[in-house]
Amino acid sequence: MTDISKLGEFGLIHHLTDDIKIKNNATRYGIGDDCAVLHYPDKEVLVTSDMLMEGVHFDLTYIDLRHLGYKSAMVNISDIFAMNGTPRQLIVNLALSKRFTVEDMEAFYSGLRAACNKWNVDIVGGDTTSSYTGLAISITCIGEAEADKIVYRNGAKDTDLICVSGDLGAAYMGLQLLEREKSVYYQQVNEARKKNDQRALTALKDFQPDFAGKEYLLQRQLQPEARGDIIERLQTAHIQPTAMMDISDGLSSELLHICKQSHCGCRIYEKNLPIDYQTAVMAEELNLNVTTCALNGGEDYELLFTVPIGDHERIASLKDVKLIGHITQEAFGAQLITRDNNEFALTAQGWNPLQ
Amino acid sequence: MTDISKLGEFGLIHHLTDDIKIKNNATRYGIGDDCAVLHYPDKEVLVTSDMLMEGVHFDLTYIDLRHLGYKSAMVNISDIFAMNGTPRQLIVNLALSKRFTVEDMEAFYSGLRAACNKWNVDIVGGDTTSSYTGLAISITCIGEAEADKIVYRNGAKDTDLICVSGDLGAAYMGLQLLEREKSVYYQQVNEARKKNDQRALTALKDFQPDFAGKEYLLQRQLQPEARGDIIERLQTAHIQPTAMMDISDGLSSELLHICKQSHCGCRIYEKNLPIDYQTAVMAEELNLNVTTCALNGGEDYELLFTVPIGDHERIASLKDVKLIGHITQEAFGAQLITRDNNEFALTAQGWNPLQ
Repeated sequence: MTDISKLGEFGLIHHLTDDIKIKNNATRYGIGDDCAVLHYPDKEVLVTSDMLMEGVHFDLTYIDLRHLGYKSAMVNISDIFAMNGTPRQLIVNLALSKRFTVEDMEAFYSGLRAACNKWNVDIVGGDTTSSYTGLAISITCIGEAEADKIVYRNGAKDTDLICVSGDLGAAYMGLQLLEREKSVYYQQVNEARKKNDQRALTALKDFQPDFAGKEYLLQRQLQPEARGDIIERLQTAHIQPTAMMDISDGLSSELLHICKQSHCGCRIYEKNLPIDYQTAVMAEELNLNVTTCALNGGEDYELLFTVPIGDHERIASLKDVKLIGHITQEAFGAQLITRDNNEFALTAQGWNPLQ
Repeated sequence: MTDISKLGEFGLIHHLTDDIKIKNNATRYGIGDDCAVLHYPDKEVLVTSDMLMEGVHFDLTYIDLRHLGYKSAMVNISDIFAMNGTPRQLIVNLALSKRFTVEDMEAFYSGLRAACNKWNVDIVGGDTTSSYTGLAISITCIGEAEADKIVYRNGAKDTDLICVSGDLGAAYMGLQLLEREKSVYYQQVNEARKKNDQRALTALKDFQPDFAGKEYLLQRQLQPEARGDIIERLQTAHIQPTAMMDISDGLSSELLHICKQSHCGCRIYEKNLPIDYQTAVMAEELNLNVTTCALNGGEDYELLFTVPIGDHERIASLKDVKLIGHITQEAFGAQLITRDNNEFALTAQGWNPLQ
């Protein structure tokens, strides 16, 4: 393993970014000067940014650095799609403590680059520096869009249909699964220590967590995918959403953002929420309400959007998109209609990073 | 003092950014959606980014949060000027531990906004989240420039003149001063504790550091100014630099970047280095070589640039710009000519955040 101080700041950046090839015409100049230079004639430029702190947003006992790099890039790319834009450039700020090696950063960058390659995004700059405590990541993604195609959160209208892509709650279940296997591991370690059972302790070094049949949940947690494919499909089908967001904090929380900014209410139907089989099984195992998980789980990075009611047929025929309800007047509030026809007001139970 | 968790993430962001008015036509949409939306017809977009970690890049016993906000914004604005561009938007990512209050963040934002107001920069977004340990700041600044006006690091040519704005080494001396007063304070506290002198300990709560006659050094360290005024003056004088950088890591380090990327050498003259009177006095007091401080001090955020030799007269008449040497062929290396006519190879002693 190679100590990062051997390369120094400029050496490390050079090592990690030297063979990055620029893929977008809009990227005039990437890494290596005070700024990156981008060119956007007659397009709007979209910018989004995220801060990820070790211990708060990720736990390196659950996620390896390659997946972390992939996820860090993907969640920002997802925000550009959520405005109906095309992601183009990524800027990566990193602060690392001394426990990280050059090889660790290579793994992180390989994930970052895999995500960027998937959507033809150029890595154009950033700052790499040190931290006393763990890893801090700040990613900024830049994209482009035609002015009249951008979809904000504030355009939903009464009677619009509410749609989501993919399925919900699986990323949250993936996290529960990782936490369960971690606690199983530490329980066994503690028992072996109590009995001073050296043989068991040695065997535990090869501890294999039990993820059989739950691979999808893990993948959703560790390797989320931005839904650029849905954006392409909407375009092909000539559907222009009236409001759109990506689901990072949970469906309820995002839907309330749209209602607040669009000055409207909504009704969504429990029976229509798209939930994968593995999510349902895992919720059963953990004695959790699967609807609550789908509403408040977060980290699915699916798209939530509204379309005019006239697009009903076109939406119905769209692969991997589900109609979950409709927009109402503001006075009716944001309601969930349960399977047994009860109504509940939606509340934002989404994860609050400041509590 | 108000606990941040009382407001929550969205509440805090709303509280800090609610009354931000957009000043640039290019800023179509700021805070409040997945992305900010910018518009740049027929201009190049410039992007720069910095990561600042508590304990590594700043020490809150030296700098208050208002100054820290000001400085964080200013150093990024400075990078846009260093490409000969105009700064337009700023994105602010923050991660804070529980010891910070709403009032702390108000102070930080007031500094941030003062710096942005000075150069008509719009704050358009960012992420505010929590950290287990201290404060982490990531700032991205976006600007614009005409394609043929952008100045890179790689355009310096043999015989070009090397210029710097303002003076050098003062910010470094400001830091030495702050560190000296801090150690004086702790020395007195320790002595009082040893003698169990409660009266002295109480009196030390009102300890006043001795900054008399050194206000300029403090200001340079705590409140650096991006040299947009120099960019405007160069434009008015019809001078287009061939290479340019801002001096964040020290003159030597930056000059070596220009030489490396422009494939050239340089000769600079010790007697021409611009040094303020207070810097010289403080170096004397601390028994430091003032030239070394000017070469390697860093954090001055002055502009270092090269111009064709034909611009000699125009440069000579430019206020607050000093000619310090000239570019040579690569084979001659990067040399400092001392007052007594000795030659020394310049080395990058700039601060390395990864060591």
